[in-house]
Amino acid sequence: MTFSASPADGSRFASTWADLAGIGRDRLRGGYSRHLFDDGDLQLREWFRAEAGRRGLDVETDRNGNLWAWWGTPGPDTVAAGSHLDSVPGGGAFDGPLGVVSALLAVDELRARGVRPRRPFAVVSFAEEEGGRFGVPCLGSKLMTGAVDPDHVRRLRDTDEIGLADAARRAGIDPTRMGPDRERLAQLATFVELHVEQGRLLQAADPAAQVAVGSEIVAHGRWRLTVTGEGNHAGTTRPEDRHDPMIPAAAAVLAARRVLADHPGAVATIGRLHPVPGGTNVIASSVQCWLDARWGSAEQTATLVDEIVAAVRAEAELEGCTLVMTREAMSDRVDFDPGLSVNLSERLGAPIIPTGAGHDAGVLSAHLPAAMLFVRNPSGVSHAPGEHAETADCIAGVQRLTDVLADLLA
Amino acid sequence: MTFSASPADGSRFASTWADLAGIGRDRLRGGYSRHLFDDGDLQLREWFRAEAGRRGLDVETDRNGNLWAWWGTPGPDTVAAGSHLDSVPGGGAFDGPLGVVSALLAVDELRARGVRPRRPFAVVSFAEEEGGRFGVPCLGSKLMTGAVDPDHVRRLRDTDEIGLADAARRAGIDPTRMGPDRERLAQLATFVELHVEQGRLLQAADPAAQVAVGSEIVAHGRWRLTVTGEGNHAGTTRPEDRHDPMIPAAAAVLAARRVLADHPGAVATIGRLHPVPGGTNVIASSVQCWLDARWGSAEQTATLVDEIVAAVRAEAELEGCTLVMTREAMSDRVDFDPGLSVNLSERLGAPIIPTGAGHDAGVLSAHLPAAMLFVRNPSGVSHAPGEHAETADCIAGVQRLTDVLADLLA
Repeated sequence: MTFSASPADGSRFASTWADLAGIGRDRLRGGYSRHLFDDGDLQLREWFRAEAGRRGLDVETDRNGNLWAWWGTPGPDTVAAGSHLDSVPGGGAFDGPLGVVSALLAVDELRARGVRPRRPFAVVSFAEEEGGRFGVPCLGSKLMTGAVDPDHVRRLRDTDEIGLADAARRAGIDPTRMGPDRERLAQLATFVELHVEQGRLLQAADPAAQVAVGSEIVAHGRWRLTVTGEGNHAGTTRPEDRHDPMIPAAAAVLAARRVLADHPGAVATIGRLHPVPGGTNVIASSVQCWLDARWGSAEQTATLVDEIVAAVRAEAELEGCTLVMTREAMSDRVDFDPGLSVNLSERLGAPIIPTGAGHDAGVLSAHLPAAMLFVRNPSGVSHAPGEHAETADCIAGVQRLTDVLADLLA
Repeated sequence: MTFSASPADGSRFASTWADLAGIGRDRLRGGYSRHLFDDGDLQLREWFRAEAGRRGLDVETDRNGNLWAWWGTPGPDTVAAGSHLDSVPGGGAFDGPLGVVSALLAVDELRARGVRPRRPFAVVSFAEEEGGRFGVPCLGSKLMTGAVDPDHVRRLRDTDEIGLADAARRAGIDPTRMGPDRERLAQLATFVELHVEQGRLLQAADPAAQVAVGSEIVAHGRWRLTVTGEGNHAGTTRPEDRHDPMIPAAAAVLAARRVLADHPGAVATIGRLHPVPGGTNVIASSVQCWLDARWGSAEQTATLVDEIVAAVRAEAELEGCTLVMTREAMSDRVDFDPGLSVNLSERLGAPIIPTGAGHDAGVLSAHLPAAMLFVRNPSGVSHAPGEHAETADCIAGVQRLTDVLADLLA
């Protein structure tokens, strides 16, 4: 049973969306910078509480800073849907919030369809999915599932040297209680995450489809490269006396692109690079940069990273610099529950596509059946202010999510 | 008449130096970050007033934020000595402050030698010599001499988007009165700037010499390169769909080094590079970087920069990015007054060396005889926390500066 979008759906989606538009804007970079426990994040949490309250859902914040809005009494066999509200620095409006908004609107739509859930349903917003402030993506879902050490997390610091523990306390969350939440996890039966597509695979698979079902997340990780040289005067230091860490760092940027030619399907990116001290007339003393690499499996990704790092290491030696490399995160390939995905694809008449982006659904899928729905994004732009999905496509996403939930809750 | 360093000189130098050691430290980058009108700069100005007051010198702040401490009544035929108190970000202790401290201690030494000046003498500290906050090096001396448009200066903003005009007002300086100060300039007969050497030419010229005389400053300039691409998701954007501005920016870093092989004596550096938005899992939408280039004459430097930019432009076209280049500063080659320099070299028995670094003495030398003394720095490290000159060499510098001033003031 599939409902088409009614005018009422459109105006409700648009007004809910508009309420979010002003929160966490990044005036410098454009788009949004919504990071764990910053002012924008705290406002988004208030927005979530208000939207849940308007629907008569009880809201709780779990020990790891994730938000849960309950329809029915929390308990075993829970179906959950949602995503996250945080963004990358200077990110778009859709990545994350679209999944939370859709899950909230799905409650309205389920009620309009007369569905009476026979199992508890929760709308969830996971904390710091992008890792934009403290560097660990899917932080909230990884803490909950025990995929990250809470002692490590408590020691994380942002670029202003503010500790995660202090930031959590400011937000009213006790950092000493962070960590695996086995009881909550045991109650979850299924998780469905709707997300804006972040590439153009959906359009390639079916130009007419507004929504797709996810099959898998390719392996992905991030590595911090620290190149140390010798700070010096840019005007008075002869080329042969230089140990300039920018040279190996620049080689890293180019190597990350160059190796892709030999490895179809792989991607590698350096989009964050920080020379110290960063003065115009100063040879840097050190450079930190971050390598994001993704390819089929964890082993394949490691091969890719090894090739890039070998090139950087050779350049560092020539320049008389040292290179230290730290793996900050690594997620192996995730295959979503095949039964669930194929079922959803047939149910919705939607194509099945993989994704190169990490998601909380990928973290949860190690513990319970999880599925993803992708709303099309023809430009493919994401993690940038220009990220966009048409309202009609978003509304179709709400309808398809409602279809799925109606089946699961019945 | 040359005095050797006495124990009293050593302890006075050391205690004056120690008073400065705690001001404007950069805990993040190491060394010092002392920038125009920041807290450190305001403390340094208080320190200058106190040191001048201790010697009975009257202090005035000119319309452009430069400090003048007068021995005798301000008027025509003034001899001035000094340097600057600001630093590059994460810079060393010596670049700038050594010249100001030496000029203050030279007053003590002149008095100890019984010199009674027959002309006014001023110790001067020029504002924002490094351009570390607002991007224009030698800002104070350029404003005074009319080498920079005060309207342009008033519109400058720092990286936090704070305007120079607002920062000046905070420091009690009226920005509307900034600009050429012809009366003051007309009163100056000679300027001598003592500075720590920022390379290793002195040691090559004479391993036994503690102090050298400057002959010239090679042409130098800074250019801002803005590469604009398309921000996108690092995990989901195929290599062939990318317009990543980091690629041409990295090419710029490498080109700036590569072209030097064909141009002996030239230097070019990119030590400041800023990807926007700068997220780990984000292809940058734009990158700003700054090219510092120096070679014999302005024409030669332009040739060098053209070669580098041609390489970057080619890379930008391949990547589907745009490149905009802005010249932020350019200073042509400066030859210090040859009569004065040769005279000083003979008087002090000191070698004559050129420098690749810009200085306020270079700006003033377009208007009056100006000279520079360099104190040796065997490691050559400068613009970095490790910048160092031995105390004995600094004291020798004070003595040689005193010798020069005793001649000029007699």
